[in-house]
Amino acid sequence: MVQGNNESKSLNDLIQISSRAQRTRSSAIREILSVIDAPGMLSFAGGLPDESLFPIDGFRKSYERAIEILGPKLFQYSSTQGCYSLRSWIHERYYSESDDSAPDQIIITSGSQQALDLLSKFFINEGDTIFVERPSYLGALQVFSSYGGRALSIRCDSEGPGIDDLKQAILKFGRPKFFYGIPDNQNPTSRSYSTNRRKSISELLEYYNIPIIEDTAYYELDFLPEKNTSGERGKPSFAKLLPNHSFSIGTFSKTLSPGLRMGWLRAPKEWISRLISLKQSMDLHSAVLNQEIVNQFLRSGEFETHLEKLKATYSYKASITSDNLYKYFGEDIRFEAPTGGMFFWLEFPDKTDTSVLFDYALKENVAFVPGCHFYSENPEHHFARWNLSHSGINDLEEGVGRLHRAWKSARIGT
Amino acid sequence: MVQGNNESKSLNDLIQISSRAQRTRSSAIREILSVIDAPGMLSFAGGLPDESLFPIDGFRKSYERAIEILGPKLFQYSSTQGCYSLRSWIHERYYSESDDSAPDQIIITSGSQQALDLLSKFFINEGDTIFVERPSYLGALQVFSSYGGRALSIRCDSEGPGIDDLKQAILKFGRPKFFYGIPDNQNPTSRSYSTNRRKSISELLEYYNIPIIEDTAYYELDFLPEKNTSGERGKPSFAKLLPNHSFSIGTFSKTLSPGLRMGWLRAPKEWISRLISLKQSMDLHSAVLNQEIVNQFLRSGEFETHLEKLKATYSYKASITSDNLYKYFGEDIRFEAPTGGMFFWLEFPDKTDTSVLFDYALKENVAFVPGCHFYSENPEHHFARWNLSHSGINDLEEGVGRLHRAWKSARIGT
Repeated sequence: MVQGNNESKSLNDLIQISSRAQRTRSSAIREILSVIDAPGMLSFAGGLPDESLFPIDGFRKSYERAIEILGPKLFQYSSTQGCYSLRSWIHERYYSESDDSAPDQIIITSGSQQALDLLSKFFINEGDTIFVERPSYLGALQVFSSYGGRALSIRCDSEGPGIDDLKQAILKFGRPKFFYGIPDNQNPTSRSYSTNRRKSISELLEYYNIPIIEDTAYYELDFLPEKNTSGERGKPSFAKLLPNHSFSIGTFSKTLSPGLRMGWLRAPKEWISRLISLKQSMDLHSAVLNQEIVNQFLRSGEFETHLEKLKATYSYKASITSDNLYKYFGEDIRFEAPTGGMFFWLEFPDKTDTSVLFDYALKENVAFVPGCHFYSENPEHHFARWNLSHSGINDLEEGVGRLHRAWKSARIGT
Repeated sequence: MVQGNNESKSLNDLIQISSRAQRTRSSAIREILSVIDAPGMLSFAGGLPDESLFPIDGFRKSYERAIEILGPKLFQYSSTQGCYSLRSWIHERYYSESDDSAPDQIIITSGSQQALDLLSKFFINEGDTIFVERPSYLGALQVFSSYGGRALSIRCDSEGPGIDDLKQAILKFGRPKFFYGIPDNQNPTSRSYSTNRRKSISELLEYYNIPIIEDTAYYELDFLPEKNTSGERGKPSFAKLLPNHSFSIGTFSKTLSPGLRMGWLRAPKEWISRLISLKQSMDLHSAVLNQEIVNQFLRSGEFETHLEKLKATYSYKASITSDNLYKYFGEDIRFEAPTGGMFFWLEFPDKTDTSVLFDYALKENVAFVPGCHFYSENPEHHFARWNLSHSGINDLEEGVGRLHRAWKSARIGT
């Protein structure tokens, strides 16, 4: 007879959880976010949009319009793939230039994090190798590792991931399950791949038959008007360059609202039905109300105006931050002034450990994310991610000033 | 050098997907739902609530109140665990009787399907054995199998899963990762476990240290007033009987609105932080707007009135359906008149194959779900699940009439 033995052991021993669950740790950013709720704290840690710009009135009108059009259907079960009208809008704006792409290749997800979870579930078997940028998005590293993926990072320069590094990694570690990259205004560096680099990467990935997961979270957040020349917004996407190998994920979190949790996934035709089945097993479908609020807002024509305001504000905040970083730190730290996105990637002198600096910063009531968290392996310790979008204009200089004081204290302290 | 060989193979060969993705199939119900959109079709297939009862005005007011209270925070990133006020309400109503349970033991999820996905990710390693009821909820079987769980089904009688069957299964197959059950107004049978059976199961599970996933989706949908005697709604939950071994999942899909995708998970204290990390990797958090619409609605005090109306309507629909099943089929089929929940579980004579009957039914413009889909193994073929909640009063008799015509045709056809 199987023996019950609930007396000698704690529940920790008695309930067996999956190796997946044992592996998954809380993301450092979320833990940092919870630390920095203290009164008086100025936080430049999160990737939060400027909430004063949320188009709340627009959302309210969209809600009313959605009820008018859909009635009770707005609150009923709906299709797993998501609202067709919303998928059409996404297709029209982002994928209509790709080889015979169609709204049917798009699945609506609950934010791009769910798209990452879905693709991880889709691709990764325990122990699989995957390639990521060095540094890369923390939430992606977290979910890849939760499925047992082994993330190897590819060195990047100002034009994107190095072609030689990519080749060498393939030769050394074999074909990865996929390459995960953020080609536009990357998190955490705010860099974008050059057009030439996109083409070289596409050729390489096609040659070796490696799929790419292209994360377009910051695609819309280009500050410079010259990025929008010749009628084409931004640089060619991998969805366009490599339509049959590319899995594109996107989100409305950075353009409209993160709280609505609305994102999407665009995949090659032949994989869509499998991905829908997986998504169905995950949550049946994403909330209809949220899909329709976004859809009606986009259809109202207010999106462009909203986006222009957003980009102008972020661009302004970036320039103020930039000026203050120069003013306080002079030549002591290095950074590229972001031309898009949400972050400064600050490079401190080699000997600085930004995890140590973080503790000093907390004492000065200011927070950022130590750079080490953005590396899948062999972390660099002298970088910091500094958000430019969330804080009010009036706090931007004060924040940098506090960071500088923390840095001075840390130098004395070490 | 690693060879690229994109000429000789199709993409299907070239992109390697996970064994998980290869395994996950679309649920039969969702496929059936897509077939039955034809004009003139009366569908009794889905588990859809009566959408004419959605408290749309209440939702609208809740939305306004939420904007008033939270402002832009309603659309900002938020905590992974979910809105505290909503968790408190859930705790107060469903878990306050459990041993030192607290709102901190509750995580808000995007419907109970996401709670199932989360718990599957949490528990299941490839090849793990899990126990389910025979028959059981299809969406659960789907997600368990997507993680490589091997679901073994325990025979049930009118009081719940058989104790001897449960014991025998443990002795034969070893301790499963968990037992998954729906103790109240089950899907698909609408049966509830008796109080005694709950106690015996609890003792057995505790003795063998087997956790239970208790799905309370239909808990609120008791039709009979006598179920609410002595001030206690329903029968004791496993969260109460076995607080340290029980993972309770719940949803507002059956009481308020499925389109809002609002559910929850209540777990023993020591597992909460790991579950939050997993949930975070899945979608960061569930939508704030949806949490607050539900929260404000619940706090408005209209929930009880709404629920009474809902139960009265479903009870009335059940009795009409019951009468018509007797009227048309007489002794030809067997069923227990549901005293709660959303379904009739119809037992046709042994020789009837309800998958065949389904095709005849489609010709008569009526749909149901063949019972075979609710079995993890060795399916029974002479059962059918018939929804009682979604169709309008006027269609209830016509639906049963069509089913009867289909059955007559099928008998001649075979």
